[in-house]
Amino acid sequence: MTRSDPNSFDRSSLIRAHARETRSAARNGSLSYVTHGLSRGHVQANLAIVPQDYAFEFLTFCQRNPKPCPIIEVLDPGEVEFKISAPGSDVRTDLPSYRVYRDGALSEERVDITEIWRDDHVAFLLGCSNSFDEVLERNGIPQRHLEKPDGRISVYRSNIACLPAGRLHGNVVVTMRPIPHQEVVRVTELSSRFPIAHGGPVHIGDAEQIGIADLSKVDWGGVNPLRAGDVPVYWACGVTPQDVALASGIPEMITHAPGHMFVTDLYIDDQRKG
Amino acid sequence: MTRSDPNSFDRSSLIRAHARETRSAARNGSLSYVTHGLSRGHVQANLAIVPQDYAFEFLTFCQRNPKPCPIIEVLDPGEVEFKISAPGSDVRTDLPSYRVYRDGALSEERVDITEIWRDDHVAFLLGCSNSFDEVLERNGIPQRHLEKPDGRISVYRSNIACLPAGRLHGNVVVTMRPIPHQEVVRVTELSSRFPIAHGGPVHIGDAEQIGIADLSKVDWGGVNPLRAGDVPVYWACGVTPQDVALASGIPEMITHAPGHMFVTDLYIDDQRKG
Repeated sequence: MTRSDPNSFDRSSLIRAHARETRSAARNGSLSYVTHGLSRGHVQANLAIVPQDYAFEFLTFCQRNPKPCPIIEVLDPGEVEFKISAPGSDVRTDLPSYRVYRDGALSEERVDITEIWRDDHVAFLLGCSNSFDEVLERNGIPQRHLEKPDGRISVYRSNIACLPAGRLHGNVVVTMRPIPHQEVVRVTELSSRFPIAHGGPVHIGDAEQIGIADLSKVDWGGVNPLRAGDVPVYWACGVTPQDVALASGIPEMITHAPGHMFVTDLYIDDQRKG
Repeated sequence: MTRSDPNSFDRSSLIRAHARETRSAARNGSLSYVTHGLSRGHVQANLAIVPQDYAFEFLTFCQRNPKPCPIIEVLDPGEVEFKISAPGSDVRTDLPSYRVYRDGALSEERVDITEIWRDDHVAFLLGCSNSFDEVLERNGIPQRHLEKPDGRISVYRSNIACLPAGRLHGNVVVTMRPIPHQEVVRVTELSSRFPIAHGGPVHIGDAEQIGIADLSKVDWGGVNPLRAGDVPVYWACGVTPQDVALASGIPEMITHAPGHMFVTDLYIDDQRKG
């Protein structure tokens, strides 16, 4: 469902770019591919937009499930600018790619949602584990997905149930990173420092224990084979709301396309005000 | 507005009691006084109940203002049991005293809200700095209010504005603890470890800098005079929603009476699941 070839745009120019530049590239259409590895050090975010009628239930769902759904910013109904985490942004244009779920099914994928935006839409930014890429890199922990041409992490449905909220229910979606066994404790410690980016792992090791039958069959993203001595380590993933949209049959939810994140001005080690 | 004398019930039996016992004493009417210092080590919580029509705005307000309003648990509309933080509890009976705000004014104070409970009521538990009493005690940091017969902390309106959410706005309400000057850094470090209990201070030192004219005139609670060498240290306080109810003219908000908290089964150093 991805419209652009990873080689059609020079993503490397965005690796060290400020978040504004990556958002601008998404807005003007030059970036329609995944944001893994871009604007290193900036907090990347999952997007979920629901009708106002579902806003309280969705926010409660996030509050009850902070590992898959760590809240970065919530807008008032109809607002389009993330004033706190990305001044000058526009939620309708600043992501490389969007998905629209209707009545519990994926309805369409778009690069812009301006035409379908409504005043009763409520937008939520949720943290993303891409945000600690730079921390892992600085600490010498390999990020196998960033070494591949497609740059895509592995994403799976797990059988870990979320706590439901009103009409919303579903299981935790997870990312998997192959981690050299001697780095598993350190990557757990490091990622646990950043709850806003899903925090520590939800599982370490055997995929079957969390209901994943075959690591070579991803539900989203790309395959990242284990090498000798690797342990698969799983983090909660902000694609979870998309699986909730499917499982709960919510009339409408607009999200980022998996991997095509909203990049905020925040840095992963910022201390938030207030 | 407090109905019971601190000496009419032996509060000392509850200092080391499990949270269930303190809630039970509130439920059966034997405890109608403040919970400062009771069930040490347990997380104490502020209560706010709003009509469903305000629930999304209130939860968004808390998300935007995590220092005064750290969310512990949110119930679905009409639910009365805090199943996660206090199994078996009943929000209508388990606090020593409640306040009811209507149309921006304090309307009444009650020891039980069963008669006025409605199915469209949505209940929120917010963290309270009472929760780190035991941590400060263990670290030898004096808690002057617990040394007084009335046990009451000092609570003031500040001029620090909260971020608004929809129809809700107001300033941060603060508690003040007199801290010996040589302990100010350590109390900042210690309390910062517990964001669920308001985290680190919002201000250290001169009261006027945050709009408090006279420390001897409390807005809630009791006076706690500074001794020689003390520095006043201020934490965000969960009475903030009550000031928001007054400032915003919300049609109805039911809260704990200041100091009369909901005591949860959680311990301050628990690591939450999920």
